[in-house]
Amino acid sequence: MTRSNSTRRANPNIIFFVALATVLPVVVQAQSGPDAARAYREANEPGLVRDFAELLSYPNWAFTPQIREAAIYIRDEMRAVGVDTELLEIEGASPLILGELRVPGATRTLGIYVHYDGQPVDIRNWTHNPFNPTLYTRAMEAGGEEISLPEDGEEVDPEWRIYARSAGDDKAPIAAILPVLRSFAESGITPTSNLIFMFDGEEEAGSRNLAQYMEMASDVLEEIDIWLFFDGPAHASGRPQLVYGVRGASGMEVTVYGALRNLHSGHYGNWAPDTGNVLAHLLASMKDEDGNVLVEGWYDTFDPIGPEEQAALDAMPDWDDQLKEELGLVRTEVEPESLPERLLVPALNVRGITSGNTGSLARNVIPNTAVASLGIRMVKGNTAPQLRELIVNHIEQQGFHIVEEDPDMETRLRYPRIAKVTGGMSGSVASRTTMANPFAQTIQAAASAAADRAFGLGSLVVAPGMGGTLPLYLFTEVAGKPAIVVPVANHDNNQHAPDENLRIANLWYAIDLYAQLMTMPATVF
Amino acid sequence: MTRSNSTRRANPNIIFFVALATVLPVVVQAQSGPDAARAYREANEPGLVRDFAELLSYPNWAFTPQIREAAIYIRDEMRAVGVDTELLEIEGASPLILGELRVPGATRTLGIYVHYDGQPVDIRNWTHNPFNPTLYTRAMEAGGEEISLPEDGEEVDPEWRIYARSAGDDKAPIAAILPVLRSFAESGITPTSNLIFMFDGEEEAGSRNLAQYMEMASDVLEEIDIWLFFDGPAHASGRPQLVYGVRGASGMEVTVYGALRNLHSGHYGNWAPDTGNVLAHLLASMKDEDGNVLVEGWYDTFDPIGPEEQAALDAMPDWDDQLKEELGLVRTEVEPESLPERLLVPALNVRGITSGNTGSLARNVIPNTAVASLGIRMVKGNTAPQLRELIVNHIEQQGFHIVEEDPDMETRLRYPRIAKVTGGMSGSVASRTTMANPFAQTIQAAASAAADRAFGLGSLVVAPGMGGTLPLYLFTEVAGKPAIVVPVANHDNNQHAPDENLRIANLWYAIDLYAQLMTMPATVF
Repeated sequence: MTRSNSTRRANPNIIFFVALATVLPVVVQAQSGPDAARAYREANEPGLVRDFAELLSYPNWAFTPQIREAAIYIRDEMRAVGVDTELLEIEGASPLILGELRVPGATRTLGIYVHYDGQPVDIRNWTHNPFNPTLYTRAMEAGGEEISLPEDGEEVDPEWRIYARSAGDDKAPIAAILPVLRSFAESGITPTSNLIFMFDGEEEAGSRNLAQYMEMASDVLEEIDIWLFFDGPAHASGRPQLVYGVRGASGMEVTVYGALRNLHSGHYGNWAPDTGNVLAHLLASMKDEDGNVLVEGWYDTFDPIGPEEQAALDAMPDWDDQLKEELGLVRTEVEPESLPERLLVPALNVRGITSGNTGSLARNVIPNTAVASLGIRMVKGNTAPQLRELIVNHIEQQGFHIVEEDPDMETRLRYPRIAKVTGGMSGSVASRTTMANPFAQTIQAAASAAADRAFGLGSLVVAPGMGGTLPLYLFTEVAGKPAIVVPVANHDNNQHAPDENLRIANLWYAIDLYAQLMTMPATVF
Repeated sequence: MTRSNSTRRANPNIIFFVALATVLPVVVQAQSGPDAARAYREANEPGLVRDFAELLSYPNWAFTPQIREAAIYIRDEMRAVGVDTELLEIEGASPLILGELRVPGATRTLGIYVHYDGQPVDIRNWTHNPFNPTLYTRAMEAGGEEISLPEDGEEVDPEWRIYARSAGDDKAPIAAILPVLRSFAESGITPTSNLIFMFDGEEEAGSRNLAQYMEMASDVLEEIDIWLFFDGPAHASGRPQLVYGVRGASGMEVTVYGALRNLHSGHYGNWAPDTGNVLAHLLASMKDEDGNVLVEGWYDTFDPIGPEEQAALDAMPDWDDQLKEELGLVRTEVEPESLPERLLVPALNVRGITSGNTGSLARNVIPNTAVASLGIRMVKGNTAPQLRELIVNHIEQQGFHIVEEDPDMETRLRYPRIAKVTGGMSGSVASRTTMANPFAQTIQAAASAAADRAFGLGSLVVAPGMGGTLPLYLFTEVAGKPAIVVPVANHDNNQHAPDENLRIANLWYAIDLYAQLMTMPATVF
């Protein structure tokens, strides 16, 4: 991919923007920020799609050598639109990208969080190389067809989808921030707040160095009045949303054991322990067929929601039926509870099972182990060790002896059922900012205006909590700042899964939204 | 690997053997067949190990181009020891190797069945390349160490193990037949029966063309009085055995469905169907925690054993405790029933489960499918379609709608639980030759003599049935001939699994055994 046709070639003198901003801090501008950003986008759509594709072509799995190349690329792009940007680095960690855009005279500071790393990829399950961004006329499952990236002058259909790892989670915000700032520079528009950009390179790996990075940058970060999290998908209805909380996440792995080695299913079948069946009984004991978790104490672990959250829940669109139809589902867990309700209680899911082989590699053996990877989603009040302990207790109650390493012969010959449990001691923590926060109305009004413009009047959904995970607790619980999540990705972006994608209309919405948030009336704070 | 040091270089004039046989058909020979074979083996042990390694180096997965090369190699080796050998070929099938060794004046004909194909290999789980035979001083799990193939003059430890696909199942018989015939030629010994060798190239793939091949060779095969099956492992005690029946086998695959695509476990976890858990409930419903199959009618499907078989069962060594200790097991299915008893009822096992990922590839998704491969072992009276129907009925009783292809959207939106069932319509058929057969005592006496010599007096175990599968029914049920299985491989040969191996002492036993069987007294038949 070359950058010869990029939108940025037209604006070499971005330095003027900083100069302008210095001279004209709070004057009424001829054109509004949202109008300027919208006009710029409409004039440059093919180039913006190509620029996004270029950003997506950088592999970005945390802790790999390649992620540093992605970080340098993003840093340089941010510098090119006038943001004073540096990489913070800790040995063995992915770089943190920290950018500052000071607005002389501004009386408040917005923190903007994005993560530029992505989930690991099991490339066998992707239609295309996940780092070779590929454009489709619609979603693949809706019959979309592959097309080339658009040339200048070509019409861009907002229903196009671009397929690549991190298209939705979470490079789209970066691809929208850049043109907004560029449009402001071209039009002489000044943000109404100081902007601090913090792009995390380890979110999908648990943001394990973020606390230390935030400590390193504490001088800058402590100025921030409120954090905006540019991450997550739109509401399942396709409508944009604004979210006050996130779930936490952790994972565990459980291995059950049969004989010391794989056994021929003919010679030993009917006699040797059937590991797949042993694991099946264990997993079935953890959750009933309706989806109720049966682990003792599971539903006694978390903070109940308050009246504001209940009111917001009641006002949310009832989208379950449409969503089920879209996903090809007749049945969901714990019916008739709705998805927004279910997101406010802790979840336990099977992320994966591995035992022997299936398909063409299936052989006539009794596998000597069966492994389940469990995904846990926490809500405010939960901690990872607390839920891990409940699960371990449950496994013991099923008659298993718990080990932390593969059992030795002595252990094997002492216990009829053995389960190895690994992981689950740590994880991202759940968080909720109270909806009574005074900043909430300002942010909500700005987001509402952008949503009205992009998706129609009254389209913004306000949710007390979303299902995904962000390192929000570092901001809300550790640093004590309010934080609001402002997602832009389409809800069907295949986040974390193969064939992740972004709908182009959602990139356009992100440009509208960020322009609005960056030019919120200064008087409201 | 080169053949420059092989045992065969010393015997270029093998044609003399045929000439001798013609002249001296039934005279009393100076040295017995078993003695001649034993002496030959003792004089050539390093070369015999190297020859076996060479045979094992030929990849032999049925239906691949390479298996034909293996067949040609074996054909040429058989020709070199005086067997009139040809490849029979059917388009798209693996070749059948058919060899004839006529003994003028012989009044009976033994059929000798071996299969030269092997199970598929999942190379990731092997310690060494499965077609690069590797010698160890003991079994790997007993702390054996890798050593080079022995040079001439080097002492060969019978506890050595050779690791390679098909070492135990089922190339070892070929590696023993060749030196037995060579030793007879060198010593002027004549077999007491005509010998028809049939080496199957598709046994591990269900011997699907064997019936047609047997039809093609019917002129030759109809002369056979009794079939000997050189396949299967020794008794679990390590003692040699003689077996009157085999189980049949078939396999099925069951796939359960969640949403149309993998879903982010944060955004949808607790609401979207948890496919791993759905499959767990289904598998748990098929078999209880003690190992009893719960599929309705499962235990009403097969022929009960007769009094001879019950008597043989009662006389078999009680080896369960030792076997459990060796395999690291405290508990087996349906205790206190013994392994030999359990082999006489149909088995249902989980051969493999695949859903999402575990380990380092685990991701925060709810997988959209979970797949189980089921292994079924049949006993006399069972058929594959009969057991498949019972399983399909069971799945339906658990509330699943059964499909044969991935469900379309209309199907998804009609049924809350959907399971795809594939396979299971065919499989190898179980078989049992009655122990009252008049040939049985002759064969049993010869096998007993070889076992006495190799493993000690009274070491032969006589079993009414073994757990493994052979295409025995084509001989017993279709062609109406008696058939007896005479295994030689060590019971812990990792048959069908990674790191398959043969203990050298078992190769030496095979040489003793085959020499005995090929020179059984002519008067007994």
